[in-house]
Amino acid sequence: MTTAPDYSQGVAYVRGQYVPIADAAIPLTDWGFLRSDATYDVVTVWEGAFFRLDAHLERFARSCASFRLDPGRSPEQITEVLEQCVRLSGLRNSYVEMIATRGQPPWGSRDPRQAVNQFYAFAVPFVWIADEAQRTRGLNLMVSDVQRIPASSVDPRAKNYHWNDLTMGLLGALDAGGDTVVLTDGAGHVVEGPGFNVFCLNAQGVLVTPDQGVLEGITRRTVLEMAQALGVPLEQRTLPVQELQEAREAFVSSSGGGLLPVTRINGKAVGDGCVGPVTRQLTATYWAWHHDPRYRRAVQYAL
Amino acid sequence: MTTAPDYSQGVAYVRGQYVPIADAAIPLTDWGFLRSDATYDVVTVWEGAFFRLDAHLERFARSCASFRLDPGRSPEQITEVLEQCVRLSGLRNSYVEMIATRGQPPWGSRDPRQAVNQFYAFAVPFVWIADEAQRTRGLNLMVSDVQRIPASSVDPRAKNYHWNDLTMGLLGALDAGGDTVVLTDGAGHVVEGPGFNVFCLNAQGVLVTPDQGVLEGITRRTVLEMAQALGVPLEQRTLPVQELQEAREAFVSSSGGGLLPVTRINGKAVGDGCVGPVTRQLTATYWAWHHDPRYRRAVQYAL
Repeated sequence: MTTAPDYSQGVAYVRGQYVPIADAAIPLTDWGFLRSDATYDVVTVWEGAFFRLDAHLERFARSCASFRLDPGRSPEQITEVLEQCVRLSGLRNSYVEMIATRGQPPWGSRDPRQAVNQFYAFAVPFVWIADEAQRTRGLNLMVSDVQRIPASSVDPRAKNYHWNDLTMGLLGALDAGGDTVVLTDGAGHVVEGPGFNVFCLNAQGVLVTPDQGVLEGITRRTVLEMAQALGVPLEQRTLPVQELQEAREAFVSSSGGGLLPVTRINGKAVGDGCVGPVTRQLTATYWAWHHDPRYRRAVQYAL
Repeated sequence: MTTAPDYSQGVAYVRGQYVPIADAAIPLTDWGFLRSDATYDVVTVWEGAFFRLDAHLERFARSCASFRLDPGRSPEQITEVLEQCVRLSGLRNSYVEMIATRGQPPWGSRDPRQAVNQFYAFAVPFVWIADEAQRTRGLNLMVSDVQRIPASSVDPRAKNYHWNDLTMGLLGALDAGGDTVVLTDGAGHVVEGPGFNVFCLNAQGVLVTPDQGVLEGITRRTVLEMAQALGVPLEQRTLPVQELQEAREAFVSSSGGGLLPVTRINGKAVGDGCVGPVTRQLTATYWAWHHDPRYRRAVQYAL
């Protein structure tokens, strides 16, 4: 007699098998680990439906092509795997990740072209990059001295796990009493944080977000589209730290919770220190768009 | 009845257990993978003895401290684990890796300080970063346009898996008919390649190796000490690409084979295109030092 596996904490797809997330592992020798030679994407399921799945699948395909990784599956086949992970877990709100790794070449070879690439996926309970208290009062965002890895070294548009700069910046920010961190390009411009893009409504009432050296987040794209739909003036360009500090409103965008308000920067209030009206309007629109059939794809929980 | 595990292809230490390398895995959710939040070191066993184990253990401790990772073991305890991996494998020549990863914080937390760090190790057959034919005729080293991740983003002295720049540069070099690749700092200076440091004997007969933006390799250190012992003039400083191209001799240094001669750069002969006399002398000295009791620590294969 065997006990039924417990899928309630999440499900992973590993080497053709669906397993409880706690049992999911990758070979120690996969270059996805030993050289961080991998790409990934994250899509969310909210109230039983994927949000903008097509956009995430398209970006994942572009990321794979950029790093010359082959997930070995069509977008339709990847969708089947992701949906099965969610289905088995039964999760109505889920954080769903798809991963391609280099795998490893035959022993003795150091030629990445000879490696057999691998595909992994998992669905776990929805991840918020800020907890409920932080979302209510707004984040205290610290600007770090650590420079984000530049685009001349690693293509930031291809989603990757090169996070040491973000992690070290985050540790410094947490030690200093901040909630999270944003890195700069080393030339006085804000770039991105661990898992999110940054926006501000500047002193002139223009919504500004950096366009260089950043991941082109799907949530970022959604914010841009919402701003256009709502008639909020918008600029994608380099964002000086000072302009962010003098902004009326600020927020970060991420699949891990959508728009998260920023009400302090380095401990100093943004505007009046409260979550601003434009941030509130965009946030409400973000969640309303989750019911829009253009972006929603219902998970078939029962087969 | 159970079959005895096959340790002949290598042995790994994973969560307190010694397992055949083919069975070694890390949790998919370890931030060591999902954020490349890890550090490592590699020491070799040659003819039944560790080479400069103390230097590798010291650097591993410094790397861990730099990234605020705790391997949870003293250098003596790590030595015991590494030796047991080698002992079980029976390998006389082995590539031995020790790894510390962030692990993961409790679900919902994004605070690296709350994570339980993990320690892994493995011993596999000795890895040469160049095959025998390449070592005999010398490598064709390609200089890549990809910029090495700068020290302002990730500390290069703390050994890390942030290799996307090296991997993409390597792919370009292999496609162009090269054997391997060296990256630059984006300002015309040679930095390092995938798993090695670079040296040249310049037109003036001075041995030059870069000192900025590079891992301070233990093999690199050994080369510096040998050059001093042999009276070869030596400079550690930035190395312009042009100076490397006009050098009399060149080689790379790595635990994966010691000194590997470079006889072409971007397909063009270095000096007369043959492995040079200083490179030969240093290479012979490198292997001779493996018998020096200062650097050698015999593996106790039988307990």
